[in-house]
Amino acid sequence: MSVRFALLGAGRIGKVHARAVTGNSDARLVAVMDAIPEAAQSLAADFECEVRSLEDIEAAADIDAVVICTPTDTHADLIERFARAGKAIFCEKPIDLSVTRVRECLATVEQTGAKLMVGFNRRFDPSFQAVRAAIDAGQIGDVELVELTSRDPGPPPAEYIAKSGGIFRDMTIHDFDMARFLLGEEVSRVCAVASVLVDKAIGDLGDYDTASVILETASGRQCVITNSRRATYGYDQRIEVHGSKGMVAAENQRPVMIEIATEQGHQRPPLHDFFMTRYIDAYAAEITAFIAALRDGAEISPTGEDGLKSLILAEAALKSVAENRFVDVD
Amino acid sequence: MSVRFALLGAGRIGKVHARAVTGNSDARLVAVMDAIPEAAQSLAADFECEVRSLEDIEAAADIDAVVICTPTDTHADLIERFARAGKAIFCEKPIDLSVTRVRECLATVEQTGAKLMVGFNRRFDPSFQAVRAAIDAGQIGDVELVELTSRDPGPPPAEYIAKSGGIFRDMTIHDFDMARFLLGEEVSRVCAVASVLVDKAIGDLGDYDTASVILETASGRQCVITNSRRATYGYDQRIEVHGSKGMVAAENQRPVMIEIATEQGHQRPPLHDFFMTRYIDAYAAEITAFIAALRDGAEISPTGEDGLKSLILAEAALKSVAENRFVDVD
Amino acid sequence: MSVRFALLGAGRIGKVHARAVTGNSDARLVAVMDAIPEAAQSLAADFECEVRSLEDIEAAADIDAVVICTPTDTHADLIERFARAGKAIFCEKPIDLSVTRVRECLATVEQTGAKLMVGFNRRFDPSFQAVRAAIDAGQIGDVELVELTSRDPGPPPAEYIAKSGGIFRDMTIHDFDMARFLLGEEVSRVCAVASVLVDKAIGDLGDYDTASVILETASGRQCVITNSRRATYGYDQRIEVHGSKGMVAAENQRPVMIEIATEQGHQRPPLHDFFMTRYIDAYAAEITAFIAALRDGAEISPTGEDGLKSLILAEAALKSVAENRFVDVD
Amino acid sequence: MSVRFALLGAGRIGKVHARAVTGNSDARLVAVMDAIPEAAQSLAADFECEVRSLEDIEAAADIDAVVICTPTDTHADLIERFARAGKAIFCEKPIDLSVTRVRECLATVEQTGAKLMVGFNRRFDPSFQAVRAAIDAGQIGDVELVELTSRDPGPPPAEYIAKSGGIFRDMTIHDFDMARFLLGEEVSRVCAVASVLVDKAIGDLGDYDTASVILETASGRQCVITNSRRATYGYDQRIEVHGSKGMVAAENQRPVMIEIATEQGHQRPPLHDFFMTRYIDAYAAEITAFIAALRDGAEISPTGEDGLKSLILAEAALKSVAENRFVDVD
Repeated sequence: MSVRFALLGAGRIGKVHARAVTGNSDARLVAVMDAIPEAAQSLAADFECEVRSLEDIEAAADIDAVVICTPTDTHADLIERFARAGKAIFCEKPIDLSVTRVRECLATVEQTGAKLMVGFNRRFDPSFQAVRAAIDAGQIGDVELVELTSRDPGPPPAEYIAKSGGIFRDMTIHDFDMARFLLGEEVSRVCAVASVLVDKAIGDLGDYDTASVILETASGRQCVITNSRRATYGYDQRIEVHGSKGMVAAENQRPVMIEIATEQGHQRPPLHDFFMTRYIDAYAAEITAFIAALRDGAEISPTGEDGLKSLILAEAALKSVAENRFVDVD
Repeated sequence: MSVRFALLGAGRIGKVHARAVTGNSDARLVAVMDAIPEAAQSLAADFECEVRSLEDIEAAADIDAVVICTPTDTHADLIERFARAGKAIFCEKPIDLSVTRVRECLATVEQTGAKLMVGFNRRFDPSFQAVRAAIDAGQIGDVELVELTSRDPGPPPAEYIAKSGGIFRDMTIHDFDMARFLLGEEVSRVCAVASVLVDKAIGDLGDYDTASVILETASGRQCVITNSRRATYGYDQRIEVHGSKGMVAAENQRPVMIEIATEQGHQRPPLHDFFMTRYIDAYAAEITAFIAALRDGAEISPTGEDGLKSLILAEAALKSVAENRFVDVD
Repeated sequence: MSVRFALLGAGRIGKVHARAVTGNSDARLVAVMDAIPEAAQSLAADFECEVRSLEDIEAAADIDAVVICTPTDTHADLIERFARAGKAIFCEKPIDLSVTRVRECLATVEQTGAKLMVGFNRRFDPSFQAVRAAIDAGQIGDVELVELTSRDPGPPPAEYIAKSGGIFRDMTIHDFDMARFLLGEEVSRVCAVASVLVDKAIGDLGDYDTASVILETASGRQCVITNSRRATYGYDQRIEVHGSKGMVAAENQRPVMIEIATEQGHQRPPLHDFFMTRYIDAYAAEITAFIAALRDGAEISPTGEDGLKSLILAEAALKSVAENRFVDVD
Repeated sequence: MSVRFALLGAGRIGKVHARAVTGNSDARLVAVMDAIPEAAQSLAADFECEVRSLEDIEAAADIDAVVICTPTDTHADLIERFARAGKAIFCEKPIDLSVTRVRECLATVEQTGAKLMVGFNRRFDPSFQAVRAAIDAGQIGDVELVELTSRDPGPPPAEYIAKSGGIFRDMTIHDFDMARFLLGEEVSRVCAVASVLVDKAIGDLGDYDTASVILETASGRQCVITNSRRATYGYDQRIEVHGSKGMVAAENQRPVMIEIATEQGHQRPPLHDFFMTRYIDAYAAEITAFIAALRDGAEISPTGEDGLKSLILAEAALKSVAENRFVDVD
């Protein structure tokens, strides 16, 4: 039988998930809820579902799972509430900006036995999956070094930065998750360097826009992450993994694969403009994996624990910058 | 209001179009018909539409348009029948293998005033569209030479070949259409060379599996097409257009953008396995364009005339090979 | 012992060969001759050799071999003269623009038993050698289709065109030689299309600036050549060979391997500006092969016969254009 | 007048410089000296120069400059000796493994007014020069992040490691110099992580084979370096520089530019096998720059001071690893 969904949050990323749910023949979008009624109504019209209140969704017998796409500071409350209501939960990252609050929330999830998947979309990108598959197949031998490049096309507005939890919790957290996905071993040590080079307003808010991080595991595997809030040529998303037998890399992607050659040389058009276009397949595959796990009773991944661990790495990176030192993680 | 569709033919390409129609919020798939009842029922179940007979579809008040995906030898008859029934028609290429029959059929279309679009999917590929846009924007100046590479991953079965009309009408016809799409001028002369190098069975049927063609326009623009029924590395689909100011090229595409480096060198995985994966976006964009034209009352393109002209080039190429000479086209 | 050289012709390509000879520790440049005394003196100063007359070089006991870089219309006479003088001969392509004259000249070479190598430099390009090596190693199976792209950065002056013998004898001849180098079978049929799209002055001289050629062998192997006297992005020199098991291609080359990414996209700088920079390694390897063959008594390749065969293909292409038909070659 | 050279050290890198000197028409190789007489004699025979003793070279009136390619522990002594003898000096990196000894040596150089160039060959690589030129031309705006990838094809023998001064002084030192060449600002802070993942023998000698380093400048510019003593696919040498307006990158290079496509995908052959082939043009350009500076009386670069500064960064990195902390540099 189809998995019946309610969508909490009808914003930009909410629409992405609405499309993924309705495009999946094993799922059905039953209801949507948003703090802004017009947003909910508009999405309901587009995807032919009902607008309901949180309370109604909580109590509904015809809803099996919720997708949480509301603002970050509501995530933990909603997870707890729907865990108690017996719904399966897909929650956009992060669970919360506070490690303590995340632990609390995950404790509730555990007590209720609720099924929880955290939205680290990059794990589901077909090319990144192929990178992981190459590693798992032994094609590059033992992993020695992971290099992750993430550059946003441009800095977000100040109000976004103010609520974001800072670059490490908001942006690098995706790279921390990918590092854990690819290193094959937990991180034991973090050192980070961060600067304000793109936008002074970001610095005024106590945040950074340019960061480099080294992660190390107990056996000496290394991961290097570089982040920037600016990349004039588009959304820069690359992975490189070196092992004892070789290297596997995922290249950048662009909407069209053409090249124009003139007196100036050979030019390819800019990369995808941001995550909505770059990771369109990943978002669909992510919800597909969630639905499949619910139907098969399979393990859900990435888990709340995965969300927690990446947040701990973000805190360690922040501490490394603030205290100008290497930070151990256990 | 939504455009209401019936699908004629529930085979492989029928499913592609069913997906395109149901995924378009301006369209609705009302009914499907297939000579094999089980095929129709299975597609109807997957896409939640009715199974109807040809007669019912013809007479139906709730159907605005048909998509013809039946075997080639039924295309012309169905076009005429639904033109007379007042339906808009999207028909997979080719209209017919005989130029005479196509002309007859198009005469009926003209008399009835029916709207007809022929399925040359490649025109709608985002990268090929970008090639055309670069030309239209003057980025490469006046077009001088178009180079088209089309190689299938492997030869089709003998029974397919037997009914296909031969390599020029079945395979090169797509390149003839792209040549016309990109040259900016009609072709006036054709010379073709064809061999049997891949599969003797193809030669036994009087067909070829490897072909090179030069097209020339009145002003001296040239187009070179190379075709093969074999490409071990996947579905090879490339375009290169040279002009007075430069060149624009569309590269091959692969399902994942990774590279593995070992002692053997740097290796990227094979290309898409065939047209169903390579042109998935093109098929969706094609139906979207058809729907948009019906709703806006805009010109439909490619037209039946486009289908005819490419078929004429195919016949010219065949004559060039058979008679070992250059063939003029008017 | 070192091979002792005289250089006939101190122009642009003469200097290339002077550098190749003096850079080879198994060879010594003894003398240079040029119709323009200043040119000979300047080259002699740069490469520390003597200026001598043709007669002196002919009679010299301290000269083993000559490199002929004089104007084309002197090649055949000089080859005959130095063949009779008992010198080994390296001659820039072509031997002559007339097939009859080339046959005559080669007859003299045969009578005298002189050693003659014709300067088809591309055979010695490291990447093209690697293409051939991949074929010879069976990596792509049986050859089915060779594609050769040659585009000059810009058209030569009218006075060059006037003496050049036309695009097929002057430019395509290199591609004809590469086709023979790669096809693994002699060409039996030629069809060619040629236009004037770049420079009207070229057309006024009865020549063409844009050409596409199909070659076919007896067993049905095909070769497609495209040529233009214009490529705004640099000297375009590519090879692609398709076989039953796969494909091997040689990419274009540029002086620096960088890429600049901005709002406009990712841009690589233009290709090499022309043959002097693109084929610098090939010219050195060519002379090295000549020297090695002289020292080892090994077979010399490419031979005068190779020069003749490519010229015959050039004539066939010209006839194909002039008479608007396929031309058989035996 | 030509610059007259003596070569000290006839080993592998000595031959590279002998070739560069003899290939330069503004220079002449007069003499060679080596602790192993046979080595000196062999090089003298190949390059047609004399074998002389250190004392003779020191006293020679016909020698203007020396190229020091002897073992590292002799560099500082030889620099001092030939500085006092009034010769211009080109010395392979490093001047010495001890910062104190380097300072002493440079003091002598300063007192004598000798001209000293240190052999950081990578600065002279044509592609890396083009990277720097793009920065200088403002094409990427203000530099924000430099990424340097250096991976050797395989680990050197234990005896080499034992005398090398460790990975940071031996290998990363090239990257430290490139960082300084590209950052546009001196480094103020270093953090480094190093592991033994490739070869246990390297760890037994107290050294590392895998390292990641972050450098930071006073204004917050960052540089990330990754090093490994192993890269199965060849000598991995890449640069990427991000700025406020874009990015410039230098790609890896391979001896031949071909690609083979089969059922396994598209494969390019391995990269250059090591520095002797990868940096052949850089070594020639380096000596050319030295000769040009001597002839023009121009500034010599990179200087002894450049050698010292990179060594200081190497020591800082070593301290960062040993003391598990960020290290400030002044």
